[in-house]
Amino acid sequence: MAGAYLTPSIRIRRTPFSSRVERAGVKAYTVYNHMLLPQVFESIEEDYAHLKRAVQVWDVAAQRQVEVVGPDALRLVQMTTPRDITSMADDQCFYVPMVDDRGRMLNDPVAIKRDRDRYWLSLADTDMLYYCKGLAAGFGLDVEVFEPDVSPLAVQGPKADQLIARVFGEAVVATGFFRYQTVSVQGHEMVIARSGWSHQGGFEIYLDGSDYGEALWDLLFDAGRDLDVRAGCPNTIERIEAGLLSFGSDITIEHTPFEVGLGKYCDLDTATSCLGHQALLENQEPVRQIRPLTIAGDALPPIDCRWSLTNSDGESVGYVSSATWSPGFAENIAIGMVSQTHWNAGAILKAQTPTGVRSVVVREKYWN
Amino acid sequence: MAGAYLTPSIRIRRTPFSSRVERAGVKAYTVYNHMLLPQVFESIEEDYAHLKRAVQVWDVAAQRQVEVVGPDALRLVQMTTPRDITSMADDQCFYVPMVDDRGRMLNDPVAIKRDRDRYWLSLADTDMLYYCKGLAAGFGLDVEVFEPDVSPLAVQGPKADQLIARVFGEAVVATGFFRYQTVSVQGHEMVIARSGWSHQGGFEIYLDGSDYGEALWDLLFDAGRDLDVRAGCPNTIERIEAGLLSFGSDITIEHTPFEVGLGKYCDLDTATSCLGHQALLENQEPVRQIRPLTIAGDALPPIDCRWSLTNSDGESVGYVSSATWSPGFAENIAIGMVSQTHWNAGAILKAQTPTGVRSVVVREKYWN
Repeated sequence: MAGAYLTPSIRIRRTPFSSRVERAGVKAYTVYNHMLLPQVFESIEEDYAHLKRAVQVWDVAAQRQVEVVGPDALRLVQMTTPRDITSMADDQCFYVPMVDDRGRMLNDPVAIKRDRDRYWLSLADTDMLYYCKGLAAGFGLDVEVFEPDVSPLAVQGPKADQLIARVFGEAVVATGFFRYQTVSVQGHEMVIARSGWSHQGGFEIYLDGSDYGEALWDLLFDAGRDLDVRAGCPNTIERIEAGLLSFGSDITIEHTPFEVGLGKYCDLDTATSCLGHQALLENQEPVRQIRPLTIAGDALPPIDCRWSLTNSDGESVGYVSSATWSPGFAENIAIGMVSQTHWNAGAILKAQTPTGVRSVVVREKYWN
Repeated sequence: MAGAYLTPSIRIRRTPFSSRVERAGVKAYTVYNHMLLPQVFESIEEDYAHLKRAVQVWDVAAQRQVEVVGPDALRLVQMTTPRDITSMADDQCFYVPMVDDRGRMLNDPVAIKRDRDRYWLSLADTDMLYYCKGLAAGFGLDVEVFEPDVSPLAVQGPKADQLIARVFGEAVVATGFFRYQTVSVQGHEMVIARSGWSHQGGFEIYLDGSDYGEALWDLLFDAGRDLDVRAGCPNTIERIEAGLLSFGSDITIEHTPFEVGLGKYCDLDTATSCLGHQALLENQEPVRQIRPLTIAGDALPPIDCRWSLTNSDGESVGYVSSATWSPGFAENIAIGMVSQTHWNAGAILKAQTPTGVRSVVVREKYWN
């Protein structure tokens, strides 16, 4: 598909910020959790350059929240993840792989501990609301599970601290990495976390109540004019440089956390009530794993894909799942799934791209 | 939103028929179950007229299947629906409301009984895979739940019988309404059911194995040239005329089956193991319900919406969820949710549309 026109439908929900995103000249969307998620403003390349030098406001309301609240809230969330969440501080956010009872990935949200018996799951693109509802019913848990009217708005980029300080005060800037504070702005309570799907630093503001969306957007833009604040969105180039994985592209329901490099979030000694615990115990040594890759040749457009990776005998040893030209590193950077036989740094492979066969080198680390 | 450009991504899956859909000149898509679903070929109006006079082939692979198989398959599916599925014949399909333990709608799939211990759920746009996985884990059920490589292709329109007879034989045309036969075409097994999301009659072919998608498409087009077979898709005008409801637009997770007119599928005397059974027992008398509506004034474009409905005192008494001009019935036809106080046929209301206030009349029946 060279791209397509998306028919308007309320089934694909607008966000509290959509009117402002349109006014800012959004050029393309994707659909994420049944909601519009902006993808391009100027161009992916220009958005990337601006993100790395200034500050952007991202409508990431499509990171829908699932709220799990009640005496069994911790028990339910822990069933879904091999990361031990019992150690979470009251102001902490955890990036958590979520798995089914086969130990296969269902989602990779940020879990936010709102209270001892209350969690938000800030989701990637699958209906974890339905999985949590099924578990709650099946295990007879004393919890409520629902989607609250909470919409994240990200502030990302090297000048994010400055912008946040101006609008919410210096105290908020002191927030630690993957910690949050709760602030009240004109009577509207919002959680502000130091997090976000870029390597440039910044915050995610969890707006509680759609009706204040446009006002919040305007506050940020009014305060950030001289910082060159612009509308932005998760950027494919920047996130590949940083090794931020995309659920549905780099990660699928066929993968274990170990295969997608999330083994460090598997606390198999303590998170024994995770439903995938036994399966993960038995699959700690994957035979394929995600790797950063460099691809030779002309500049590739930002893309997610399933380009076969082959060895010198032409046998399949994996695939490329995301690729792009990186202006910052002046090469084609990529993420792919590679068999154990060929996953060591320096291994040379071939990628079967739509524009021909290209040489590929397995890297040790991501770029950022 | 006046419409938007959709960024290509493998996270939004192509279908086994996508290459043919593109060749046929698809003009717009929606995203449905993380997959592309065509929305327009010539124009919605021309697609509608053709659907009513000839035969169309629809790429509805986005109606993804959940397969539930194993000794507890019937038990699991029955937990999700108030329709008694124990009476299903071995070759039968049931349209089933699916609800959570609050009796609220989660999906409205067609359930297909493939075998005594094996069901397919042909889904509307939510991840019922996740709900079923949660229930299976929570209740410790002896089932497997997964998404098989099965992609529906619909053949709809008054000449559908002719086309199906040519390609699959007269015996298949004898299939009863919401019954199916299993046929083998060039070694590929497929279920063919007399069903589909239009009132024009026709079939849904459940292609088992993506690699045969283009060949199946071509078979149908080669055989149907003189029938004026064309690529089509679910048509907003035709489905509103027929009162076919759209999950996510007319039906949401806030509704009970009774509110959306699906009370006739609630067998509360026998389907007592549905998890929503108690909640539905207590909510059999809704105070709002879906209704066909006629809207005065100039021709409306096909749209789904949330236009407030008000009474003569200006008080809200519901909303319009879908509307369009019907060329066949020469009026603006619509579907809406109306309070009990105003839901009788003949009631006169006002709709707050983006182009002004319009007079609305509640109808007794849908148009087709």
